[in-house]
This record gives sequence, structure tokens and C-alpha cells, in this order.
Amino acid sequence: MSTAYATLRQRFARISHLRDAQGMLEWDNQTMMPEGGAEARGEQLATLSSLSHELMTAPDMADLFAAASQEGAISDWDKANVREMQRAWRHATAVEARLVEALSIAGTRCNAIWRKARPANDFSSFAPALEEVMGLVREVAAQKAAALGCEPYDALIDQFEPGMTAASIGEVFAPLREQLPALIEEVLERQSQRMPGFEPVGPFSVARQKELGLRVMKAIGFDFHHGRLDVSAHPFCGGIPTDIRMTTRYREDVWLPSLMGIVHETGHALYEQGLPREWAGQPVGTARSMAIHESQSLMWEMQIARSPAFIAWLAPHVREVFDVSGAEWEATNLTTLSHRVERGLIRVDADEVTYPAHVLLRFGLEADLVAGRIAVRDLPEAWRAGMRELLGIEPDSDRNGCMQDIHWTDGSVGYFPSYTLGAMTAAQLAQTARQQVLQLDEQLREGEFGALLSWLQTHVHRKASLLSTSELVVSATGSPLSAAPFLAHLRQRYLQDAGD
Amino acid sequence: MSTAYATLRQRFARISHLRDAQGMLEWDNQTMMPEGGAEARGEQLATLSSLSHELMTAPDMADLFAAASQEGAISDWDKANVREMQRAWRHATAVEARLVEALSIAGTRCNAIWRKARPANDFSSFAPALEEVMGLVREVAAQKAAALGCEPYDALIDQFEPGMTAASIGEVFAPLREQLPALIEEVLERQSQRMPGFEPVGPFSVARQKELGLRVMKAIGFDFHHGRLDVSAHPFCGGIPTDIRMTTRYREDVWLPSLMGIVHETGHALYEQGLPREWAGQPVGTARSMAIHESQSLMWEMQIARSPAFIAWLAPHVREVFDVSGAEWEATNLTTLSHRVERGLIRVDADEVTYPAHVLLRFGLEADLVAGRIAVRDLPEAWRAGMRELLGIEPDSDRNGCMQDIHWTDGSVGYFPSYTLGAMTAAQLAQTARQQVLQLDEQLREGEFGALLSWLQTHVHRKASLLSTSELVVSATGSPLSAAPFLAHLRQRYLQDAGD
Repeated sequence: MSTAYATLRQRFARISHLRDAQGMLEWDNQTMMPEGGAEARGEQLATLSSLSHELMTAPDMADLFAAASQEGAISDWDKANVREMQRAWRHATAVEARLVEALSIAGTRCNAIWRKARPANDFSSFAPALEEVMGLVREVAAQKAAALGCEPYDALIDQFEPGMTAASIGEVFAPLREQLPALIEEVLERQSQRMPGFEPVGPFSVARQKELGLRVMKAIGFDFHHGRLDVSAHPFCGGIPTDIRMTTRYREDVWLPSLMGIVHETGHALYEQGLPREWAGQPVGTARSMAIHESQSLMWEMQIARSPAFIAWLAPHVREVFDVSGAEWEATNLTTLSHRVERGLIRVDADEVTYPAHVLLRFGLEADLVAGRIAVRDLPEAWRAGMRELLGIEPDSDRNGCMQDIHWTDGSVGYFPSYTLGAMTAAQLAQTARQQVLQLDEQLREGEFGALLSWLQTHVHRKASLLSTSELVVSATGSPLSAAPFLAHLRQRYLQDAGD
Repeated sequence: MSTAYATLRQRFARISHLRDAQGMLEWDNQTMMPEGGAEARGEQLATLSSLSHELMTAPDMADLFAAASQEGAISDWDKANVREMQRAWRHATAVEARLVEALSIAGTRCNAIWRKARPANDFSSFAPALEEVMGLVREVAAQKAAALGCEPYDALIDQFEPGMTAASIGEVFAPLREQLPALIEEVLERQSQRMPGFEPVGPFSVARQKELGLRVMKAIGFDFHHGRLDVSAHPFCGGIPTDIRMTTRYREDVWLPSLMGIVHETGHALYEQGLPREWAGQPVGTARSMAIHESQSLMWEMQIARSPAFIAWLAPHVREVFDVSGAEWEATNLTTLSHRVERGLIRVDADEVTYPAHVLLRFGLEADLVAGRIAVRDLPEAWRAGMRELLGIEPDSDRNGCMQDIHWTDGSVGYFPSYTLGAMTAAQLAQTARQQVLQLDEQLREGEFGALLSWLQTHVHRKASLLSTSELVVSATGSPLSAAPFLAHLRQRYLQDAGD
């Protein structure tokens, strides 16, 4: 192996080890750490983070990249690895250190203010902190835009969706923006004319819910030799490919949300567990993007676990674990419950039909905030107007309006579109998988998930970051990403299926 | 604050954060990690360890120390901090990097071979691996000896017991070596003439044992806001002062060993939790030495928790938690069970009377191994001879003889004496505490441990590494460390007390 590239590989492996350690400590924060450990943990994480930043921005990096580009023939994977290294390095070096630090401090402060201001519905005490964060985000965006040669908001999007821009996302979102309001109307109209489904009554013990969750995780392919399930206030999938730390939360009055949450996080976990081991610790060996990650969680949660075929397999397991019977526990009823659509104020509680409306709202607003077309003080009114237009309802408060999400508080701008890009990618992948995996519904009904998982591994997981996001979608499905399969999926499930 | 010293403080804080992160990941290894995570965890730990080594051995360190020594007046704590920084730095820079790495690799290999060879009682397959480790240990000892200006074995001891030497330890051990064999004889003779005590019959549920353990931890002062208790195959006290990670293990057939194990680890935990917060992350703010650490665990386990007064408090809790009654659950019987002495082959199962014999054996043998006076192949016979001489019994196998301990397998030579130095320090501290804490036994009987803990905090914990080990013992007890209080304690407990 050539010298400069070998040095780069070694350095990025070290950076990866530091980040892996950070990931574990962050999992521990959320699941195990006694409260009094918070301050020291913050110091540990800050030191790990600054050491990996120092490694990433070492003065000889530019020379190493220049030398590596002169070195002899390397494989496609190695070439993609260098490309991803440079991408990470450009983002890391684009922004002045003082600005990174200022944003980190302001973000921590704004986040803390938000935690108090949101329950108190107090936008006026939150606004100045968010204004400060947004000011710094605009500076970061400007510096990244200068380094990457693109528009400021596009530079932020590029952190999460390499190669995508506000324009390209806007284009792929366009049919959704046009058709969704009428589609929601139609779905709700049809739903109102049908039997609403029976809601099983709890309590459902945490122990049994956990047993059900573990059973489903195991069935769909989670590798417990390389991962575990715990509890945290905000479910997530953390850890590293060979040591996945998945979490969920339980409520004793309902079981379906926790189970679907587990399936969602298992989708993320299967992606990580399916990344190519031989590229572990190298940039090309990591998950492609946030949208692709979300496509894997939504593939399992929305495309598979809410399909009638899957629920036909699931229902007897549910009855066995909770030791129950009756019409409300039959697959038909569980399917009806899983397909309930509602115009709600809160994004994280939204079903798959209305979810994109929440994302379209945020995508438009954050673009306007970064461009300075609106100010933070205009947010409450802009939020109300957007909700009226996209979803036909209006928030009763800022708490349930523009203050509901954590993302912007610490400067994570450019992330929201990934949710819906992920939903669209999941639908497009599912459409292709249904063509290529023979008799998929029959397999689901039998609890056989291996062929589907294997298809995802081949076409998505094992590719890691070899291809760009758009190349990956074309390579897996034969076409560029489009809203059509997602809209077709919604029409099929909510306007045609379940006519029985 | 002066510049060079401020820079040193900052650098050592970073090193401390890295080590704290390592400590947490090591705790996770033992308690939480799925098996398949081991390889990646090894890489994370190796990177953290090499980064902290790089920080510690940065080329400008010698200059920083030189400049710091020229800087103006600083407090005693700061002076001690510089002294401890230099100590750590001398140890880190004394050994060539290639040797550190070679020992780390050979140690990992030898440890893996030992894990298989010990259960198979296969010394011949273990010996070459241990020989390789010992060869490298001798090289490390030689390089450290050259840097520190002392004998090779003393350089190894200095890693665990700053300032102590084989000669000084030999001197303080001398009365023990002379008197212990006869004392053991006498204790066993007396024990054989008394009622043996009734052994309560299990099973004892893990849940109730844990409840009892938590109750005792809480009573003696463990701060659960800054720590937690989990299960691991080999109990330990890890983590950091504000986030202690203590572990234990349970057997369902007996409950006393697990409870005493919990008290032991709680002693370590209280020491860490009592270190001065204002010096957190600085060398002077860390625990003084292995012997002082062990003095704190043995203070609580041996001096306090096995005292009749403590057991008088404990007994009703035991009865309540296990929901039992009868003569075998009375304090008198529990005291008898807690004071049982036996000539056994295994160090970790030994009582406080015979334990020092195991340590004296290893102290002599490792000194001979480092000096080259004996070879690894001579170990089985030397072990048998030593056991005959010190304890009057002979191992039935190498598994229960020279292969029983993990320490030497990865090159931890110089550590064994700390156990008995700790026991002696605990006895000497307890003797003073009994003079200075009014009516200690009455307090113990009432379950009031605050005055004793406060005494230990004032005289040991809050001192951290301000003083040398020997200064600390003098400052707390008024005299240099001696075997006399420990021998007096053994005579009192095993030859005089409990005459009822």
C-alpha cells in the first residue's frame, strides 16, 4: 500500500476509534450513567472530540491528500475512501475553530433554555437564544459555502446528505408538496367512513413488551452477538457495527408504539450491522447518509412491519406474549390500528401520511432562516401559516408549534429533509424489492425475513459509502430517487388496500 | 497562574479525561458489552491509551517541567501536583515504545494462553508464554531502574507503591514472616476446640442479596448520585470519583461472600468518592497508591464489617431481607462464620489470617524472577516449597498452585505486596480511629458510620496524593507503617475475642 494513503488510513482509523469511544460514552449517558456523572462525562467527550478534530485538521493533511492523489493504481473502494476522507476533512477545516466553539457553547445554552421554555410555552425567552444560534449557523454556512463552492444552506445540507442541495431536494419534494394536502384529505375522508378498529386495553407489562420486542428483533435479523437493547428516555440506535446499542421506551397503557419504535431502530441497527467489516473504521465503510439510514428504519417500520402480511405473522406472537385473545387481537384489527391517520400538531407522533407535511414546513422555514428571509421572531406566525397551508390545522401554542423540536436549538440545520428523503427512498427500495424478492408477502406472512434482509444487505448495507446517495439509489432501484413510489405506496395502503 | 504549570495542568487534565473514558469503556467490557464487541473495543482502548501516552511524552514536557520549577510561589498542593506529574512522566518516558508494545502484545497472548492452560492444569504450555512476558518485564525493570536510579524490582514496585522498595517492604513484612506461621497454627488450634458455627442453607435469591448489598452500601455512605452497582464475573470498583462503577457477583448457595465483597468494593468506592473535587483530573488529586486503596477496602471489609459490633447491627437486616429467623441468623453465629480461618490453596479465597502467607510467597518469588535467581520452569517446585514453609500445605496441582493468579500473565509484577501493605495500613488506621472516634463500637452497633467515614475522609481520602504513602501513614496515625497493629488485631480477634 502506498505511503501517503496508508498514513491517511491509519489516521482516519484513529479518528474512528475516538468517535466510537464517544458513541459508547453517549450511549452510557442515556442509559446507565448516574446523574452526578454528567459534568465529568462532558469533559471526557469534549477532550475526545477535540482530539479527533486535531487529528482531522493536522497541518500535513493537505500534503497527504496531494501525495495520495499521485500514488499508483488503487481499487474503487480505496478511491471512494479517499473521496470520503477529503469530504470529512473539507467540512472539518472549512470553519474557524473559534466559530465551532462559539456554536457549541451557544447551542448548549440554547438547548438548556429550550428545555425550560418549551413546557412553559415561553417563546419570548427562547427566541434570543435561538437567534444567537441561528446567527452562528449562518456564519458556519457562509464559511462552509466558501470552502465547498456552493450556497450557504446547501453547505449545511451537505453535512447530512452529501451532494444534495435545496434545489435538488425541492425538485424531488415537488410532487409531494402538490399532491399531499389533497391526499391527506382523501385518506381521512375514506377513514371516517370505515370501522375505526378496537383499541386493546392495558396495562401491558414492560417485561412482556420487552419480550415481544426481542422476539421481533431476533426474527427480522438483529444480531445479539453484536448488540443489545436497553431503555432510554429518547430511543436511538447507537454504538458501532459490531456492538450496536439500541434503546427503546415503554408505556404500560399502549404497546404498539414501543414495538414499532423497536422495529424502526432495528432497521437502523441492521444497516449498521450489515456494513462491510473489511472497511470498518474507514470513511468509505460508514453509512452513506442520514436519508439512507432513515430509509432502512422506515423500510422495516413502515414498508414491512405495518404491512398486512407482516401483521398476519405478528398477531399470534402478540397474543402469545400478552396471553390474550379476542377480535381486537386479530391481524385485521391490528392492521387497522397500524394504519390510523390523523392531522396532528407533533411531528414525532405523526403517521407516515402526514409526516411529510411536517418536514416540508421545516425545510421551507430553515431555508428562509439561513437566507435571512425570515427572523426568529417571525417563526410562530410562519409556523401557524405553514401548518394551515400544509396540514389544514393550526397549533394551539408555540409549545406544540415552532418550539416542539430539539434540532435547531443546537444548530442542527439541514437535517429535517432527510426524514422524508428516507421515507421516499424506503418506498422506492420496497417497490424494487417486491419485484426482485420472490413472493415477499408470503415470506413475511411466514416470518421469513432473510431474503429481504439479504437483498438490503447486497444493494444498500454492503455498499456503505462506496457510491454517492443518488448513485446508490439508482444502483439499487434502477431509477433516480422520485416521489412517485412513495405516493403510490400511500395510495395503495390508504386508499385501495384493506377494502375487506 | 504561571504559564508552564498552567500548560502542564491542562495537559494532565486531558490525559485524565482520556483515562477516565478508558475506565468507563473497561467497565462496559465487564458488565454490558456483547461478546462480538471485543475486537473493536480493543482498538478503541489501544487508541485512547496511545494518545494519552503521546500527550504524556510530548517533546516539550522536559522544558515545561524546567520552566515550571522556575515559576513563582505556588501552594503545597500545586507543588505536590508537579511532583506527581513528574513521577508519572518519568515512568512513561523511562521505557522504549517498542518495549511497551512488545509487553502489551506478549501479555495479551500469555493471558489468553493462561485462560485455557489453567483449567487444563497445563503448566508446560503456559510456561513459554510466561517466560516471554518475564523476559520483557526484566527489560522494562532495567530501563525504569536506569531512569529512576534504583534496583530493577524496586522500579516495578514504584509503579504501585511510590517510594517503597523491596528492602523497605521486606523490613515491614519481617515480623509477619517470623510470627505468622506460628500464629496460624495457634488460631487453628483454638478454632478446633470451639463450636464451628451453623451454616445457613440457601438458596438465597440474587434479588434479595442485591437488596441487602444496596442497603449496606447506602448505610456506610456510598453516594448513589455518583455511582452504581452492577454484576461482573470478577468484582471491581471502576469509574471515576463522581461516577463510580462498582460490581459484584452472586452465588445462590451462599450470601456472606458476596456481601463482604460488596463491602470491600464499597471501601474502594468511598475512597474515590472522598477524593478532593477541586483537584479532580490532576495527578495530586488521585488515590495515593494501591496499598492505600487496599487499606480502605480492608478497613471496611475486615476491620469494620467483620467486627462483632457491625455484625450486631447487620444481623436484623439480614433476617429481614431474607425473611428468616433462628439461631444460625443471630449475630453471634454470623460473627463465628465471619471469623473462620482455613489453610487454603487459593489466595482470593483466603481469610485475613492466612492471606499474608500467600502474599509473602509471591513477593519472594517475583523478586527472584525479576533478579533471574529462578526461572519460570522452576516455579511449580518453588511454589510447593513456599506453601509448605509459609502455610504448611502443598498444592494438589499447578492450577491451584503457581497458575492461580492472573497478575503475572500480563506483566503486573510488583503489585502483590500492596495487598498486605494495605491490610497492615488498615489495621494501623483502625487502631488510631478507635482512639479518635469516640465510642466507635457503639456507633457501629447503631449503624452509625458517619463519624468513621468522616475520620477517613479527613485523614486519608481528602489528602489524595498530597503526601507520600509513608508520610500519609504517619500523618494519619502518628507512626510509620508497622506490622504490629495488624498482628495485634489478628491476636485480638482470633485468640482473645469471642471467648463467649
